Amino acid sequence: MSRVVALSGGIGGAKLALGLAQILPAEDLLVVANTGDDFEHLGLSISPDIDTLTYTLAGLDNQQLGWGRRDETWSFMQTLEALGGETWFRLGDRDLALHVERTQRLRAGETLTAVTARITAQLGVAPCILPMSDDAVRTRIRTDAGWLDFQHWFVREQCRPVVREIAFAGVEQARPNPALLAALRDRPRAVVICPSNPFISVEPILALPGVREAIAASGAPVVAVSPIIAGQAVKGPTASMFTQQGVAPSAAAVAQRYGALLTHFVMEAGDDATGIDARVVRAQTMMRTLADKVALAQAVLAAL
Amino acid sequence: MSRVVALSGGIGGAKLALGLAQILPAEDLLVVANTGDDFEHLGLSISPDIDTLTYTLAGLDNQQLGWGRRDETWSFMQTLEALGGETWFRLGDRDLALHVERTQRLRAGETLTAVTARITAQLGVAPCILPMSDDAVRTRIRTDAGWLDFQHWFVREQCRPVVREIAFAGVEQARPNPALLAALRDRPRAVVICPSNPFISVEPILALPGVREAIAASGAPVVAVSPIIAGQAVKGPTASMFTQQGVAPSAAAVAQRYGALLTHFVMEAGDDATGIDARVVRAQTMMRTLADKVALAQAVLAAL
Repeated sequence: MSRVVALSGGIGGAKLALGLAQILPAEDLLVVANTGDDFEHLGLSISPDIDTLTYTLAGLDNQQLGWGRRDETWSFMQTLEALGGETWFRLGDRDLALHVERTQRLRAGETLTAVTARITAQLGVAPCILPMSDDAVRTRIRTDAGWLDFQHWFVREQCRPVVREIAFAGVEQARPNPALLAALRDRPRAVVICPSNPFISVEPILALPGVREAIAASGAPVVAVSPIIAGQAVKGPTASMFTQQGVAPSAAAVAQRYGALLTHFVMEAGDDATGIDARVVRAQTMMRTLADKVALAQAVLAAL
Repeated sequence: MSRVVALSGGIGGAKLALGLAQILPAEDLLVVANTGDDFEHLGLSISPDIDTLTYTLAGLDNQQLGWGRRDETWSFMQTLEALGGETWFRLGDRDLALHVERTQRLRAGETLTAVTARITAQLGVAPCILPMSDDAVRTRIRTDAGWLDFQHWFVREQCRPVVREIAFAGVEQARPNPALLAALRDRPRAVVICPSNPFISVEPILALPGVREAIAASGAPVVAVSPIIAGQAVKGPTASMFTQQGVAPSAAAVAQRYGALLTHFVMEAGDDATGIDARVVRAQTMMRTLADKVALAQAVLAAL
């Protein structure tokens, strides 16, 4: 059986990716990570979604915080604050090692793909976590106060400024990861769109030149899992992004956003499926435990 | 009374600088730091002597280790090791904050002088710690296996390869710090050569174009404190560097190395002063306690 190609952002996507990793042989799973959230901060190259996926699949995610690494310490950040440095983006001492290692390897000319492969291997992550592109794509948010870099809006401003427009700077020139295109050509078993924010986690991947076409041409079923349950996002600004566009947040609204790309859509039992133009699959989409993640992954694959 | 200009490397020099800082008004002390040991590592700009001076004068030096910062934690380094990164140069989590902050400010175009002034101010260091130059000077060590960058020889190779030659790459093109030249023009009370390694801590400063001449032209007494006591260095490779040049390590050998630059030379009571062509001052030059540092600083100034 050929591979499952999972498109993922951070937290929610990583949960399903972990579920898939539990039930698929490592070589049968390709997790494609959004890099639109990536940014340069304190001179470091930071890739939040890749890192969330890496820590989650390595069993190193910080479940108390909901982000970052477990067993984290904060001496760096405390000291940076005492030095008058920028502290709005919290970098733990252990997390920092990953950013420093990645940054210097990128500067030395390695691709983000190679660096990610090396780091995930060191941490014992078996499935491939693939950056959507080795070229820079930077999500930007237009607010009433002008354009903000994504992390400035997301973390520094805590998603408060109303979103007027979203752009993926550089996406027209960016080449999709060749390994993604190869996987799509290689008759994948399925393309799974993880329960990530469609606007800022999945659409940067889909906006890469040729990716939508390659998914369609793959002939594989395309199944999205709703990140919205009972009109609310499990985490993050997904629901408010719909609301700010004048669309009531709902699972159906997510399915409609993906449109004809989807063949299947996995959503919570009680939610309204009216207007969804894909085969609807009911499942428990809220993932609290590892068992929840595995069960959802099984439901996703069973639906196909 | 005008200023005392102290030329210093790391540990030994910082001890005397701390003694001087205890007895002089902050505005009357200018501590000029060797930057020949500076290097780029893990993508960070590291200035070991500036940092040792900063931590020592801020009361933040790690007295257990003899280097780095007190209250240090090591999560970053442990994690970097797990990631397969370079760990031969130990960077504590708190120390790292200084390197990250400095590196990004240098990249943004600030001078090392400005960055150092900002960081020392944040840490409550009253006297000015001045990089010898804002231009890169890099000490290199020729060994039987070829040229090594200083920290590779000093830390990674733990000073084991025999030193055949020492070079200060870039020194001919480097401009001495204008504030150093200004202080020397401004009728300093004294130039103090701290008990640092002459070869690798003091001579990079003296090798900057015009610095020897400016010291001579200042008319100030020039007093060096011996880093060698009873033929041994308190710390580091000073003694072995003499031996490898065929010179028996001694206080007198240090004085002869500085030659006509010196007007005064401070050395331990029992050591042989034969052949020293400067006024010899006897003092306890071993500094274990803060009281030792203050007493030596007082002896240095009293000698003039």
